[in-house]
Amino acid sequence: MTSVKRVHNFNAGPSALPVSVLEKAQADLLSYEGCGMSVMEMSHRSKEFEGIINTAEADLRELMGIPANYKVMFLQGGATLHFAMQAMNFRPAGASADYIVTGAWSKAAVKEAVKLGATNIAFNGEADKFTRLPAASELKFDPKAAYVHFCHNETIHGVEFKDEPVVPEGVPLMCDVSSDFLSGPLDVSKYAMIYAGAQKNAGPAGVVVVIVREDMLERVPANLPVMLDYKAMAEAGSLHNTPPCWSIYMCGLVFKWLKELGGLDAIYKLNQQKARLLYDAIDASGGFYRGHAVPEARSIMNVPFRMPSEELEDQFVKEAKKADLIGLKGHRSVGGLRASIYNAVPLESVKALVDFMAEFQKKNG
Amino acid sequence: MTSVKRVHNFNAGPSALPVSVLEKAQADLLSYEGCGMSVMEMSHRSKEFEGIINTAEADLRELMGIPANYKVMFLQGGATLHFAMQAMNFRPAGASADYIVTGAWSKAAVKEAVKLGATNIAFNGEADKFTRLPAASELKFDPKAAYVHFCHNETIHGVEFKDEPVVPEGVPLMCDVSSDFLSGPLDVSKYAMIYAGAQKNAGPAGVVVVIVREDMLERVPANLPVMLDYKAMAEAGSLHNTPPCWSIYMCGLVFKWLKELGGLDAIYKLNQQKARLLYDAIDASGGFYRGHAVPEARSIMNVPFRMPSEELEDQFVKEAKKADLIGLKGHRSVGGLRASIYNAVPLESVKALVDFMAEFQKKNG
Repeated sequence: MTSVKRVHNFNAGPSALPVSVLEKAQADLLSYEGCGMSVMEMSHRSKEFEGIINTAEADLRELMGIPANYKVMFLQGGATLHFAMQAMNFRPAGASADYIVTGAWSKAAVKEAVKLGATNIAFNGEADKFTRLPAASELKFDPKAAYVHFCHNETIHGVEFKDEPVVPEGVPLMCDVSSDFLSGPLDVSKYAMIYAGAQKNAGPAGVVVVIVREDMLERVPANLPVMLDYKAMAEAGSLHNTPPCWSIYMCGLVFKWLKELGGLDAIYKLNQQKARLLYDAIDASGGFYRGHAVPEARSIMNVPFRMPSEELEDQFVKEAKKADLIGLKGHRSVGGLRASIYNAVPLESVKALVDFMAEFQKKNG
Repeated sequence: MTSVKRVHNFNAGPSALPVSVLEKAQADLLSYEGCGMSVMEMSHRSKEFEGIINTAEADLRELMGIPANYKVMFLQGGATLHFAMQAMNFRPAGASADYIVTGAWSKAAVKEAVKLGATNIAFNGEADKFTRLPAASELKFDPKAAYVHFCHNETIHGVEFKDEPVVPEGVPLMCDVSSDFLSGPLDVSKYAMIYAGAQKNAGPAGVVVVIVREDMLERVPANLPVMLDYKAMAEAGSLHNTPPCWSIYMCGLVFKWLKELGGLDAIYKLNQQKARLLYDAIDASGGFYRGHAVPEARSIMNVPFRMPSEELEDQFVKEAKKADLIGLKGHRSVGGLRASIYNAVPLESVKALVDFMAEFQKKNG
């Protein structure tokens, strides 16, 4: 165990990583498993790095139960680049794609998609300030859509899908799962593509995990720039050029940590426990703390909430910081507070937050 | 000083990093400057990370003497993504761009450019197996070209420009400087854009340093995907979305290390000394070792060389590895050996290599 000072880290991303993962990275920083080089200094074509990336992929496949007919890639550019890439790769010229908009990130996906072709908004929750999920009857799908896109968990608005939306037969389902990736089991077989910026639940910033069903790659048009071409990236095993080696290595360590914890069922139980603790504290505050999302849509990863005044919210953030509770300021578009309680945020941190909230209300409520 | 085993690292990239930089990163891995979080765990909008990226930029500006009318960006995708991006951003529809081809990487730039528009090959050294630079008279420029692109140092072929090619008046000069970035002084004011994948001389893989003259950004067309839009990236200070924080942090540590060493003049002297030592050993071997590039074009960073037979070359690589001299196998397209002697490769490593070469020749010559 470390004796270094560590804070309670509620950052929305980049965010907390498991201490044991950081300790392993620290121990091997100058010489990975005794090879005499840092992971940052070794060729991406070396046996050592091949071992790192292949083990990371195998562990991820095992954790998520990824079917054999899916490719796993470790790419770059954040989810935002992949908003554009999925449109370039999977929406043929002249075709339209459907987008479900439940928060800032699915809206950002639309912003990229409309630059590149026809984009149909199948649902837009903005009029309700992105506090809820669509009912099935509200989804206006185009049965000829090239695909349907949604965001599994809205990091800013704290709105999370519990099940996949039911889309018209044969229409591929695409999902940005960045902020609840690996927070619990997910049935990959329901998706044509899922992708996640690593910097929430999987590792440090700088790598995006992309999981694509193989038949989708046949739709990729010719002559895309190679770094924007999922087919080329899949064929090269993410190694067309130098990948973000360190970030991939860190993801691999996180995957091992998840396996040792008991996999996605185990972490899901822990995440539910943490989320319940925090939402119960909010709901028991008699309106002093108010959650942003409606209860049915509440995220178990990102918990945005408001307080009676902006002055109190500012005071809360400042005093929390003094108590080593970090990253609680809400996104400017929602305001207020936000606690991100990703996989690597320990139960103790959520308990510390809940205690602080009770104490703060007692003094200021 | 570390007591961990370290090898002599001649990898072409990712490649050696300064030991003191790695030690600093190791010491702060669980808590950056006592803040209670790893650099990998902090928000890219936090004061701590703002300090990291702003200091990295300021140190780089000081090291290179970057004029105030240039933007510095820390982006992703490797040089290969920027091959495509420069064409998208700076070659208007209908216009043509000029490419000087002196090795595998400038050839790879053409491969991306031709997918996106008209591309004129101003020089192609492939018939001479990429062993040399063009004479001024061989450069067939289009005076109306949107820009001229070249690669300052060819990592695979070991061919390095000593001066900028003289291009027609008013035509912007673009350069991939990945593998000799920061190896010595460079007059940035001669360029409209230079860019470098960090994983040779500046830091770990996962970040590309892009330096663009501001007036060029006015040429960026509307409606590019935001992550492919240099103007948007410059306006957001590289922080439109989460950047590769750890890789930027490591670059910053390398920039500090270079400043402490005495800057680019000092490292250039050391690099010349290292290169001279190695080329002298090659030239004094009576043809047992033969450099790939002609002497006038020789790189001070990447030294590809051949031996009398492939069997001897294989034997050399194997025995060198046993002696902890790592990364000496040449790229498959050139064959033979290659020693990359980047900034962070100490003189002692080059001495160890030269001694090993002499010993090997004595036994097998």
